[in-house]
Amino acid sequence: MAQAARILKTKVGIIGGGPAGLMLSHLLSKSGIENIVVEMRDHETISNTHRAGILESQAVSMLTDSGVEGRVLTHGDEHAGIDLRFNGESHPLDFRDLVDATVTLYAQNEVFVDLAAARARDNGDVRFNCEVTEILDMETSTPKFRFTDAEGVEFEVHADVIVGADGSRSFARRQMPDSVKQDFKVTYPFAWFGILTEAPKSSPELIYANSPHGFALISQRSETVQRMYFQCDPNENVDNWSEDRIWTELNKRVAGPDGFELKTGPIFDKTVLGFRSFVRQPLSHGRMFLIGDAGHTVPPTGAKGLNLAFADVKVLFEALDSFFSTGSDKLLGGYSDLALKRVWKAQNFSYWMTSMLHTPVDADPFMAQRALGELDTVTSSRYGMQYLAESYTGWPHS
Amino acid sequence: MAQAARILKTKVGIIGGGPAGLMLSHLLSKSGIENIVVEMRDHETISNTHRAGILESQAVSMLTDSGVEGRVLTHGDEHAGIDLRFNGESHPLDFRDLVDATVTLYAQNEVFVDLAAARARDNGDVRFNCEVTEILDMETSTPKFRFTDAEGVEFEVHADVIVGADGSRSFARRQMPDSVKQDFKVTYPFAWFGILTEAPKSSPELIYANSPHGFALISQRSETVQRMYFQCDPNENVDNWSEDRIWTELNKRVAGPDGFELKTGPIFDKTVLGFRSFVRQPLSHGRMFLIGDAGHTVPPTGAKGLNLAFADVKVLFEALDSFFSTGSDKLLGGYSDLALKRVWKAQNFSYWMTSMLHTPVDADPFMAQRALGELDTVTSSRYGMQYLAESYTGWPHS
Repeated sequence: MAQAARILKTKVGIIGGGPAGLMLSHLLSKSGIENIVVEMRDHETISNTHRAGILESQAVSMLTDSGVEGRVLTHGDEHAGIDLRFNGESHPLDFRDLVDATVTLYAQNEVFVDLAAARARDNGDVRFNCEVTEILDMETSTPKFRFTDAEGVEFEVHADVIVGADGSRSFARRQMPDSVKQDFKVTYPFAWFGILTEAPKSSPELIYANSPHGFALISQRSETVQRMYFQCDPNENVDNWSEDRIWTELNKRVAGPDGFELKTGPIFDKTVLGFRSFVRQPLSHGRMFLIGDAGHTVPPTGAKGLNLAFADVKVLFEALDSFFSTGSDKLLGGYSDLALKRVWKAQNFSYWMTSMLHTPVDADPFMAQRALGELDTVTSSRYGMQYLAESYTGWPHS
Repeated sequence: MAQAARILKTKVGIIGGGPAGLMLSHLLSKSGIENIVVEMRDHETISNTHRAGILESQAVSMLTDSGVEGRVLTHGDEHAGIDLRFNGESHPLDFRDLVDATVTLYAQNEVFVDLAAARARDNGDVRFNCEVTEILDMETSTPKFRFTDAEGVEFEVHADVIVGADGSRSFARRQMPDSVKQDFKVTYPFAWFGILTEAPKSSPELIYANSPHGFALISQRSETVQRMYFQCDPNENVDNWSEDRIWTELNKRVAGPDGFELKTGPIFDKTVLGFRSFVRQPLSHGRMFLIGDAGHTVPPTGAKGLNLAFADVKVLFEALDSFFSTGSDKLLGGYSDLALKRVWKAQNFSYWMTSMLHTPVDADPFMAQRALGELDTVTSSRYGMQYLAESYTGWPHS
């Protein structure tokens, strides 16, 4: 097998062609640094896997400033706030007023589509339907990986640096030796039941609701299609949920003396979204570097997943740019620590939002009341709202 | 027994003569509302039970504005910040700059001494060494309680309102019927080992240290006497701790690349301070009202205990003042809900500070890193520091 593999020489071999891998590839190519991206899935599958996305303005800038077509600006939906709803009352946070920032709702699969188009336009070497089978010599200055393409042809990528951008079930991550790694994780006693519905917007901004019945998130996809979630059991079966039952459950969680009710419509997608918090430390070993979900997973409550991946990309791109232009691996050596600093801030934020908004089934009554006390403290304080808004819209990139 | 009791008629019968009970008694008397305070311990015992105290400026004002002698101003120590120390580095928070506020270090037993002196000066009816044995008719408009004085003489207080200000082991609280009450609590897997030492100040401001060895708090009592604490097992025996061992442990927890070391001296007091979070809901039943530790206990990490008690006093005093001047019990009826709003904010703050700064022995590695991520987020954000400083120095009284 090894003998038959065709050799591909490049500077950076990127395992994984989701938004993180493609963004890095795009930036590297713009700087004239040769790279190859290898992705297991096909273009159509990724394009059609709907995943909500809330982009910090810095993530939007990374797309637009680097010459990816500006669909994020024309098709994305700028949001200048959220509504924290608890005890049946709305508490709007106005991000422009609080921290002079906004976020953009733009689905992650659309980010992928845009980046893949930019890579194609610029003749980037992105190969879909390719399965990576082995990573070799990552502790040397000539790391390699092997993959098999859709036709069963075997290749071996010879690079100076390998990047694992292959998502939460990362193959690359698993190749790091046990002796150097530490994994941190939390599993949560609940999941999100997500729906897509053909209905008008129920609210101009996202509603994050803490209720005695559990969390709900009322989000938007367009003027005519809405995305909503409610906290459920991780083993929930979507087939047990009729449209009526779903709307009753969602409405219970946003109900209040103000008579707020959701605008309903046919539900055309139901899914259970399990979530966890995970961090791999360090994010690099030898000449292999992990970015995005390959290195860390956050629960969706803080909407930090893609933003964190892009922040990794920025730090790693600058380190690689320095490495290939000066030969110094100083920044590369600092990548893991620098990226992890932001990762732990985002992990904390995501955990904070999750614990403040969700009510576990076997909730400790003290903790449920404490969460309401926290929501009250945050929303009755301009500083509290600014602190949350700053985290939500994104700390400055390092 | 009941037949022999001497009847004492008053408007407000206050069970408990600590700072909360005496402060309420003082304010009521200033407004011409007759009251009697009955306290189990003697004056000397309370005076000599050293308890650290950090007073919000609003608590200081309640003392000085109401004509209690101003020792809190001359003997108290104004502090304009704290130092959050983690990863071996100091992160000073300047309260004046952040939120234009300060706090005052003034021991709780000194607050008691001042209030007891003010009550004596104003001929207040405060009886020490008296044990309350029974509360009667609290659901009627003529509630009563019985007590026995130091000589064994029995009394029965007939009042319009009874107040339970008798601390964390409150007798009054236990007399509320089971059917109307709910208790919320958290016990923590650690305690504080506290010392008093004859040494100069190690730092001008309090240091709250998160370290891999656990929490430490470096506080001050005077130029020559310092108070310090370190997180320990709740069952720790102070006799197992030599001075050397204590200083080694404390220094480990504040050590860092800056070479910071504590100024040491003879240790003349060692004590283990267990702590928990507790809330009774509601804080009233019929004509009985709970204030301070009788209704809720916070861990010392947020320094909110006495401040919360004084906030209760303020809300209850205004309700009583309205009740006796207008006959309307509207504010009295709202006391519990209004006081609990602040209680839950303070419970959250205390829990937040505790969980962010302590490392349980069996700490989940994710949670320990998350706490560091949170400290990093707070101290690298002006909004974060303002949010913490505002909570620490005290939200406005309602």
